[in-house]
Amino acid sequence: MIAAVTNGAVAGPFATGPPEVGRVMTEVALQLAVILIAARLGGFIAQSYFRAPSVLGELAAGMLFGPYALGGLPLPGWGPVFPLKGGPLPVSTELYGFAMLASIVLLFISGLETDPKTFLRYSVSGLAVGVGGIVTAFAIGDVAAVLLGIADSFLSPPALFLGTVATATSVGLTARLLSERRKMGSPEGVTILAAAVFDDVLGIVVLALVVAVTRAKGSQSTPADWKHIALIGAKALGFWILFTAVGLLLARRLTHLLKRLRSMTTIASICVGLALLVAGLSEMAGLAMIIGAYIVGLSLSQTDIAYELQERLRPLYDFLIPIFFCVMGMLVNFFAVKSVLLAAVFYGLAGIGAKIVGCGIPAWFTGFNLRGAVRIGTGMIPRAEVALIVAGIGLSSNIISPEVFGIAVSLTMLSTLLAPPLIVRAFQGGSGLRVAVEKRKEEEIRSVSLDLPSAELAEFLVSRINRAFRNEEYFVHRLHTDTPTWQIRKEDISFTIIQDDRRVILNMPARYQHIARFIVLEEILNLSEFLESVRKMQSPEDMGAQLLKGVFE
Amino acid sequence: MIAAVTNGAVAGPFATGPPEVGRVMTEVALQLAVILIAARLGGFIAQSYFRAPSVLGELAAGMLFGPYALGGLPLPGWGPVFPLKGGPLPVSTELYGFAMLASIVLLFISGLETDPKTFLRYSVSGLAVGVGGIVTAFAIGDVAAVLLGIADSFLSPPALFLGTVATATSVGLTARLLSERRKMGSPEGVTILAAAVFDDVLGIVVLALVVAVTRAKGSQSTPADWKHIALIGAKALGFWILFTAVGLLLARRLTHLLKRLRSMTTIASICVGLALLVAGLSEMAGLAMIIGAYIVGLSLSQTDIAYELQERLRPLYDFLIPIFFCVMGMLVNFFAVKSVLLAAVFYGLAGIGAKIVGCGIPAWFTGFNLRGAVRIGTGMIPRAEVALIVAGIGLSSNIISPEVFGIAVSLTMLSTLLAPPLIVRAFQGGSGLRVAVEKRKEEEIRSVSLDLPSAELAEFLVSRINRAFRNEEYFVHRLHTDTPTWQIRKEDISFTIIQDDRRVILNMPARYQHIARFIVLEEILNLSEFLESVRKMQSPEDMGAQLLKGVFE
Repeated sequence: MIAAVTNGAVAGPFATGPPEVGRVMTEVALQLAVILIAARLGGFIAQSYFRAPSVLGELAAGMLFGPYALGGLPLPGWGPVFPLKGGPLPVSTELYGFAMLASIVLLFISGLETDPKTFLRYSVSGLAVGVGGIVTAFAIGDVAAVLLGIADSFLSPPALFLGTVATATSVGLTARLLSERRKMGSPEGVTILAAAVFDDVLGIVVLALVVAVTRAKGSQSTPADWKHIALIGAKALGFWILFTAVGLLLARRLTHLLKRLRSMTTIASICVGLALLVAGLSEMAGLAMIIGAYIVGLSLSQTDIAYELQERLRPLYDFLIPIFFCVMGMLVNFFAVKSVLLAAVFYGLAGIGAKIVGCGIPAWFTGFNLRGAVRIGTGMIPRAEVALIVAGIGLSSNIISPEVFGIAVSLTMLSTLLAPPLIVRAFQGGSGLRVAVEKRKEEEIRSVSLDLPSAELAEFLVSRINRAFRNEEYFVHRLHTDTPTWQIRKEDISFTIIQDDRRVILNMPARYQHIARFIVLEEILNLSEFLESVRKMQSPEDMGAQLLKGVFE
Repeated sequence: MIAAVTNGAVAGPFATGPPEVGRVMTEVALQLAVILIAARLGGFIAQSYFRAPSVLGELAAGMLFGPYALGGLPLPGWGPVFPLKGGPLPVSTELYGFAMLASIVLLFISGLETDPKTFLRYSVSGLAVGVGGIVTAFAIGDVAAVLLGIADSFLSPPALFLGTVATATSVGLTARLLSERRKMGSPEGVTILAAAVFDDVLGIVVLALVVAVTRAKGSQSTPADWKHIALIGAKALGFWILFTAVGLLLARRLTHLLKRLRSMTTIASICVGLALLVAGLSEMAGLAMIIGAYIVGLSLSQTDIAYELQERLRPLYDFLIPIFFCVMGMLVNFFAVKSVLLAAVFYGLAGIGAKIVGCGIPAWFTGFNLRGAVRIGTGMIPRAEVALIVAGIGLSSNIISPEVFGIAVSLTMLSTLLAPPLIVRAFQGGSGLRVAVEKRKEEEIRSVSLDLPSAELAEFLVSRINRAFRNEEYFVHRLHTDTPTWQIRKEDISFTIIQDDRRVILNMPARYQHIARFIVLEEILNLSEFLESVRKMQSPEDMGAQLLKGVFE
């Protein structure tokens, strides 16, 4: 059945051009097929059999079926499904395009879910923990590169990249674990989520600086001096601030214009288009693409279409993300792993330790005891998409070698593997606050669980409740996790909603539970009222009589 | 702000390889940005200002912003956003990959929405109209190619392709127009929808034959003889039947396995993966890719996850389809259009006439009068995605030239432009049945319209109602149109549901209206009952009391 086919056999004027389009498209189709199936099964196996996050399974599927492993084996009459490409990337740019789109959508949504108010509001422990984690992780990642012999100076591009890879925490995993254990409203939980906002923004700034500096360094033969680096850094930071300021200023006017298009599907597509556009522009301005996508998301996060956009883009996100992680796994040289295994483990553990120390110490200084500090440190361990995107930028622009890329990926793998047991252990036991801090005592968390007749109905109810909270000026934030979990927040009030198949679980601090209960109850009453009116709806004939007539005819 | 950036400036071992990944990705990001924004705005303008289908605006946006027109103009410091590529396609394979994925998803969903029972059930007029339309359109398209001097024999590849382009009707546009006018349940409406099923399947078979024959012809210098063509055709048909039979046999077992993965998001992704896999395999077996995707859809159409799959893939479909049409528009050489304008109009009108005649005559022979025959003929005019995909295959494999591609695209543009006024006019006036045909008299159509408080709620109610019909073994089919419209069908009973923003409109033949009313009413009662139970839900404390406590504290 599988036979080589010479597509486009009618020789045209371009017969000597690039490889035939039909062949290239068939290759991409087969590759996407393998990726979609393998990534999904990998994610499922990781979750069900190893109780690990699905991202681990997706990465592993990529490593296993990629060009360096099974995907490189030739099929009879066709050749390998994933032929090893000669270039900085082992996969084709046709395939990498899908991973690129995924990373743009990912960072756009991540920006959309950021609450700049948290950033601007005074949050001592959140700021301290976020900054401490970023700085420590960057320093330790950078130093590790030198210690491992990957770079010969702390300022050389590979060292700067390994520093940057270590910075950005992906808080979704922690959020899910805490939600399940009703610890999201605890002082540690609140601090971790506040720190994550600072972490996101600062991680992007560090990336902007590093990309600008390494590119400038690369184009010169003389070693960069501090003055030059500062200049380039200032320029990158300037662009970042400029883009963000313009975005925030224009967002409301833009939203107003977009709403004229009426259909949210159209608006969501155009917003992804804008994210891609600013991504391209920021790449042209010397920043990385994801920075532009994040800025567009951040700009739109304060508009009234933010929540609707998140929900509309969710299916696209769900489709693209496994492709992204699987393609990232494919970039790892399966056979080189053995030779760099020790280095990879060292770097991974260093990156994990960096967050525990770098976030734990500031936490300890801002009112937490040792137990609380360790909790916050372990909560900040997980790295995922941003770490991989940064490593991918390094690989695709030849700044880091395939071996170093494998080392960088190990941080995502090790941290998502080790974080869950560490977090669960850390959060056992008593209060994490120092005795002296009286006022911020551990809050009692109340939980209400609603069992609905179907998962679909649960999804609908959650979406209604979230909308009601949005209308009350709450910030509703979907946490990126395998189980749909939302955090709902205003000032120091914070609720979480978890949808687990047919069940909707509402966690709320005892002090504020009446607010949440009121909104949920109101939403249910609204729905009932509406249904009552539909039941009595006016129709050409009276519906009830018509119905009976039909039955007894 | 826009400055050229030398990405990946650190020269690596592959510096002489393909163009830098960073540059390629930036280009793709900018291109996708332009496409998403332009296609969506184009579609909106077409719908709002010209009352034309959105596909016209998307195609026009592609022509206007493509490499042959505005997209080819260089930006300072960067070059053109859509540089003209040297090869059979004017756009990059990186970009074309997204259009390819769109075409696979499109044909997969199209297969999923096919009801093979209609095909197997005896439907004289549907079969006659479908076959008549396909054969006539193919013949006229083929002859037109020779008359226009594009091909020198009826069996030469370009002629066969222009014949194939003309075959497949895209019935969504007709369905929407008839729904809006409550004509979907009319004998003409029912016949058009039955014919569309035959048309879909036969169109795919014709494509399979033509691709096989043209590829075989291309690899030989001697002109193909009939015997040889018959042999190749038989082989292609054999593959088609084999793939379809295997698919239908395995579908239930596969569905059973897939359900173990629990999450429908995961299942939907894997099914798209399977569509891509079989698409790749059918290309390798000498059939076109879309054939494989259609077969996977068709195979799954009879399983109980079919409806759920359609709904889950809808957002992905909505995201990709404008990209598809816009990229297709980009393949049209804007400047060559002038020189082939007459030929394009001739081919377009010939293709339109072919369906009126080819479908009208069989209709006239199976019980319709002249008015009814013209109605059915005009209803079969619209061509869209399949015509473009076939033309794209011809262009990308160098079988047709860019000029001929433009001629082929004109059929889609002219037919979607002219069909709406023609259909609306044709469906005015009295019965389309011959006096002799007494039994099949025009049915009275009843309509119920429900006004809901929000579009979101309307969407939810429609999804519940559709599910209820599915459970009653009805075939629920979403028609590809700008307004969400579903056809619900079992044996000779057929309802339509239209969701227009906050309004849900139910059209039903008077004879069967009690069935539809019963199901809708039951669905509303179910929902109310459930909400009642949630309202009284058990919680650690009694919710009502707690609520009051909160308010009066």
